[in-house]
Amino acid sequence: MKVSDIGEFGLIDKIAETVSGAAGNAVVGIGDDAAVIRSNSDHLTLLSTDAFVEGVHFDLAYFSFYQLGWRVLAATVSDIAAMGGVPTCAVFSLALPQAMNSEDVEAFYRGSAALAALVGTEIVGGDIVASTGGLFISISVMGEVAARHLKLRSNAHDEDAILVTGTPGRSHAGLRILTSRPETAERYEGVVASHRTPQPRVDFVRFLTANFELHAMIDLSDGLASEIHHICHQSGVGARVYRPSLLPDRQTTEVAKLLGEDAFDYVMFGGEDFELLFTAPSESAPAIVSQAAAEFGLRVSKIGEISGGATGVRLYQDAETWQELPRKGFDHFPAG
Amino acid sequence: MKVSDIGEFGLIDKIAETVSGAAGNAVVGIGDDAAVIRSNSDHLTLLSTDAFVEGVHFDLAYFSFYQLGWRVLAATVSDIAAMGGVPTCAVFSLALPQAMNSEDVEAFYRGSAALAALVGTEIVGGDIVASTGGLFISISVMGEVAARHLKLRSNAHDEDAILVTGTPGRSHAGLRILTSRPETAERYEGVVASHRTPQPRVDFVRFLTANFELHAMIDLSDGLASEIHHICHQSGVGARVYRPSLLPDRQTTEVAKLLGEDAFDYVMFGGEDFELLFTAPSESAPAIVSQAAAEFGLRVSKIGEISGGATGVRLYQDAETWQELPRKGFDHFPAG
Repeated sequence: MKVSDIGEFGLIDKIAETVSGAAGNAVVGIGDDAAVIRSNSDHLTLLSTDAFVEGVHFDLAYFSFYQLGWRVLAATVSDIAAMGGVPTCAVFSLALPQAMNSEDVEAFYRGSAALAALVGTEIVGGDIVASTGGLFISISVMGEVAARHLKLRSNAHDEDAILVTGTPGRSHAGLRILTSRPETAERYEGVVASHRTPQPRVDFVRFLTANFELHAMIDLSDGLASEIHHICHQSGVGARVYRPSLLPDRQTTEVAKLLGEDAFDYVMFGGEDFELLFTAPSESAPAIVSQAAAEFGLRVSKIGEISGGATGVRLYQDAETWQELPRKGFDHFPAG
Repeated sequence: MKVSDIGEFGLIDKIAETVSGAAGNAVVGIGDDAAVIRSNSDHLTLLSTDAFVEGVHFDLAYFSFYQLGWRVLAATVSDIAAMGGVPTCAVFSLALPQAMNSEDVEAFYRGSAALAALVGTEIVGGDIVASTGGLFISISVMGEVAARHLKLRSNAHDEDAILVTGTPGRSHAGLRILTSRPETAERYEGVVASHRTPQPRVDFVRFLTANFELHAMIDLSDGLASEIHHICHQSGVGARVYRPSLLPDRQTTEVAKLLGEDAFDYVMFGGEDFELLFTAPSESAPAIVSQAAAEFGLRVSKIGEISGGATGVRLYQDAETWQELPRKGFDHFPAG
């Protein structure tokens, strides 16, 4: 069977079956943002890895090497934040085209080092090999989390508030500008920067876990709709999501208008925002929203509630009108 | 400057400069087999990553997917063993050609899972993406080591015995058969298996560190000569290596003879044996050799001594005759 027939998630399920039943060091293995390994009774180690292929995940026409180095580490660090953890160190595997300049490699690492300094992590090693094709990057980030602060995708509770940081859709708006109207990139610098040099929410996660009871958490890699479905599927619950609470920000709205596209699609299906989607007891939502604004200048929005009855994910237009929210996340090998 | 002009090791030095001065979580960063991160006062976490590119590091004509899955994890686990550690878990990044079968991916993971079970580790996660070219694999392995058992490349002492496990050269002999005389692969199954499904020395390391004082250690990725130079360079010492102590085994000798090549070159420069090169106080060498044979059926050979005077690495033909031992390890981007 072709990989493209079974699909990315079908393949991951097969692999999880194949490798299960081994040594048992992991508290959580395949299927969340990062693996969780017990260090001692109240301390857990996290490990996450991400791969990025030139021509699939990034186009060097839209990134300087500095920006690329920043972005790929930010994406991987975000997985650690999404578990409630802080990143401690990172290792890189790079396969370089033979013609690549060493100055470009250094610029790449300068970008990664700047992001590492921002989030308090460290690049501690790696492997550099020759590529027969384009640039290939794999990053693994190790992190740590107190056991009581670990946030899984599978822990959403009935009637939890569903919250999201920032304003999803910005990264996709930035990408659309870079691909369709690069001459306007300076004018839309805000969303372009969200795409090129996203800021993983490491500090905010530290604040959140220290001050609030959270239940489930995931980062927005594949798009908001897809990640809501992930949490619901893995927690065995449904959700009500309110469309009016999902407002694109000003630049995202302008970009969509400029290109004759729907800004709501950017918000729901855009992906790569590396914002956080999380659930918390409903009564704590107002305090989370106000303290995020006060302490971090960060917009956090309540966008819906978990419904324990596993009724699927419903997108409400108003109090009575709803439709099923499609998943439509980015699948690297779309099933036929 | 082209990466091929600066060379692999020049580039790594540049990167180490670029990323240094960060958070300070690492006890040992870039430059050893694995990074070392302090967990608590007497316990260290290890993290190592390796990349493998189709057409550069492996050719699918010489490996089944099962064998490939075994081999790449074995190579990365070996880096953890070379630090004195035990591997606890692994994450994989794979970039798959679109035409690859899901059965092949599963066979790959079955091979990795078999090696993982053999060495007591676990595959806990990963990322699977599309490749625009051939198959690309990156593996990161986490491990642990008691602080007193940590073995660095930089800790060789004056007059230490230099020892090596197994019989280096076998992997290269196997590769030469696969590339030049594949029709004889069955006859030379021993060395072919050493190339395809090497066994990292995890159990033996556990025994060694528990029972003997060791000083420096490294695994044989790039070839024996290159690794001796690594230890000497990083420890600021020289070495005397005795050619008569470096005997290729029977199959390696036969293969070199069949192909009209020098079996000693296989031993010295072959690489990818994933055996261990280590130094220990001279008086403990006989006990290490005899106990390795008795407890593990494993040949360990004393091949020379460290000379503290940093006189380079001398290869002795007999007690008086010597020449400088060339480095000649595999450099992915040979400097011009």
